[in-house]
Amino acid sequence: MIQIPYLLFLGDAPDQLAAKVAQGIKDWRPENAVGQFRLPGCGADLGLTDMTLEDAKTAGAKTLVIGVANRGGVISETWKQVLRDALAMGFDLASGLHNLLKNEDDLVSTAKKYGQALHDVRIPDVKYPIANGVRRRGKRCLAVGTDCSVGKMYTALAMDAEMRKRRLKSTFRATGQTGILITGGGVPVDAVVADFMAGSIEWLTPDNDDDHWDMIEGQGSLFHVSYSGVTMALIHGGQPDALILSHEPTRPHMRGLPGYDLPSLEAVRDTAVTLAKVANPTCQVVGISINTQHLSEDQALDYLAKTEQRMGLPAVDPFRQGAGRLVDTLDGI
Amino acid sequence: MIQIPYLLFLGDAPDQLAAKVAQGIKDWRPENAVGQFRLPGCGADLGLTDMTLEDAKTAGAKTLVIGVANRGGVISETWKQVLRDALAMGFDLASGLHNLLKNEDDLVSTAKKYGQALHDVRIPDVKYPIANGVRRRGKRCLAVGTDCSVGKMYTALAMDAEMRKRRLKSTFRATGQTGILITGGGVPVDAVVADFMAGSIEWLTPDNDDDHWDMIEGQGSLFHVSYSGVTMALIHGGQPDALILSHEPTRPHMRGLPGYDLPSLEAVRDTAVTLAKVANPTCQVVGISINTQHLSEDQALDYLAKTEQRMGLPAVDPFRQGAGRLVDTLDGI
Repeated sequence: MIQIPYLLFLGDAPDQLAAKVAQGIKDWRPENAVGQFRLPGCGADLGLTDMTLEDAKTAGAKTLVIGVANRGGVISETWKQVLRDALAMGFDLASGLHNLLKNEDDLVSTAKKYGQALHDVRIPDVKYPIANGVRRRGKRCLAVGTDCSVGKMYTALAMDAEMRKRRLKSTFRATGQTGILITGGGVPVDAVVADFMAGSIEWLTPDNDDDHWDMIEGQGSLFHVSYSGVTMALIHGGQPDALILSHEPTRPHMRGLPGYDLPSLEAVRDTAVTLAKVANPTCQVVGISINTQHLSEDQALDYLAKTEQRMGLPAVDPFRQGAGRLVDTLDGI
Repeated sequence: MIQIPYLLFLGDAPDQLAAKVAQGIKDWRPENAVGQFRLPGCGADLGLTDMTLEDAKTAGAKTLVIGVANRGGVISETWKQVLRDALAMGFDLASGLHNLLKNEDDLVSTAKKYGQALHDVRIPDVKYPIANGVRRRGKRCLAVGTDCSVGKMYTALAMDAEMRKRRLKSTFRATGQTGILITGGGVPVDAVVADFMAGSIEWLTPDNDDDHWDMIEGQGSLFHVSYSGVTMALIHGGQPDALILSHEPTRPHMRGLPGYDLPSLEAVRDTAVTLAKVANPTCQVVGISINTQHLSEDQALDYLAKTEQRMGLPAVDPFRQGAGRLVDTLDGI
């Protein structure tokens, strides 16, 4: 686990989009961030208090989180100076960069000297078991998509937030780097060795109270040929009781796969629930999450109404409308 | 690729079963083995010529293949002496042991000194791409099972052998350690990192002649919760034109998963072909391979006839009956 709270390092991010990991932390776990650290020329601003390392230390920050993409695939010396100073002052570092902190000799030696941890959340740091399929107590919900990047993480985070607002027991279970940085822990499942994928998800979603829900972050799609194996492992390792179908209606083809049409919601529903019932015979599809960001308000409401009627399930854009109606569907499961 | 031909190292195998990898090489690629090397007390015998390292060198062997399981999870000093001698004489080493040759300092230094290769076929030695889903020329056949270890590798090897007997173009594509040692190359897909699984299978089964068939070794089962992600990646990465359903009818439950019933052949057919059509819309289920080793001849023939009638597809035990009728089904695809 990554120690909280964080100081969010925005570096010299050219714009807000480059800081989307930090934005995710601020949106979903504002209590995890004491402030932001910006270098001269930074074009991103989360609206948090700008802090020096000293300020953040005084405010109780434990970890400096690199919440920004770097340019050109190298960790610049400008960044390095801050990172080494942070280690020397007793911060851990956490990063989702492709360039691993653990591959930077100066950071490794500085971390060692001061007894601090380097967290590269893109790579697993746990020896996961092979899945055993044993049924676990507690409930689990998983979003399965027609495609990659259609809003599965957002759906799980929004449902988790709504559950906690209602004072119901819920834990968001991160399976990708952004989710892991937001919550401080999780499984970077796309970097796990094949034999241990499903086992890593069993490990992530252990026995729990009967009325506790794990909101598992989905990945990929059963219909995306590059990543379908990861989705499959989430369905079997996660033993979901409830599935949410996720879709983005304006996508011209599967992400990164020209020539591959998106499947219908019906096809995803039928295939996903058939496979999910192998691990959990009572699994059911309970709702639909539509990412309507590329539709106008009228178009969005029309699309949602038609989808709801066609599929016979609540169809919601949790960003526009909140996740209340999706959470309602879990009642009684 | 592992250089052929081999000298098969049986070591001090307690019995024939411990030498099943070597047996597989001898059964399927006898031309790849110049002889066998046995230590005092060896209880296995492949019926090949017993050779010293010198004999094998003279006979042209390029690689000493450890075709036997070791005891107690360590590579004994008795074995080590032979392995070091082999390296010094100009042999490469190949192994499917859990203990990697590359983790043995003396073998690494000896291999380096003599310029020889150490092949640990359980771990990938290629940086595989992410799958791109682009359609490839040539034809591909994949066996998909109701469970693990129901005869998928045997089916692919038997079909490949029958194809070549008929002077048709065929290549067995190994995806597990035994298959890799038998043929000298392949992808140990269960050891590949999740994001690259499907890509590794695309890499393994590249563009080929229009009338060439890849016989892809299947792994796991879509209905086996521990390994279904690997099966999924084979279905999407392999882009099969033809699927063979594989089944072992006496299994009381899914391998290693008490409480998990085997799926019906119908369920495997419907789910596998639905998912396979994502990558190859013309994919079809063409035949059924039944492992009848635990049935009498009468029981087996009865089971095969009933299955064939029920499913409307040729149902064959390739071990008892040969793979001819399965290969017939590929004609015209």
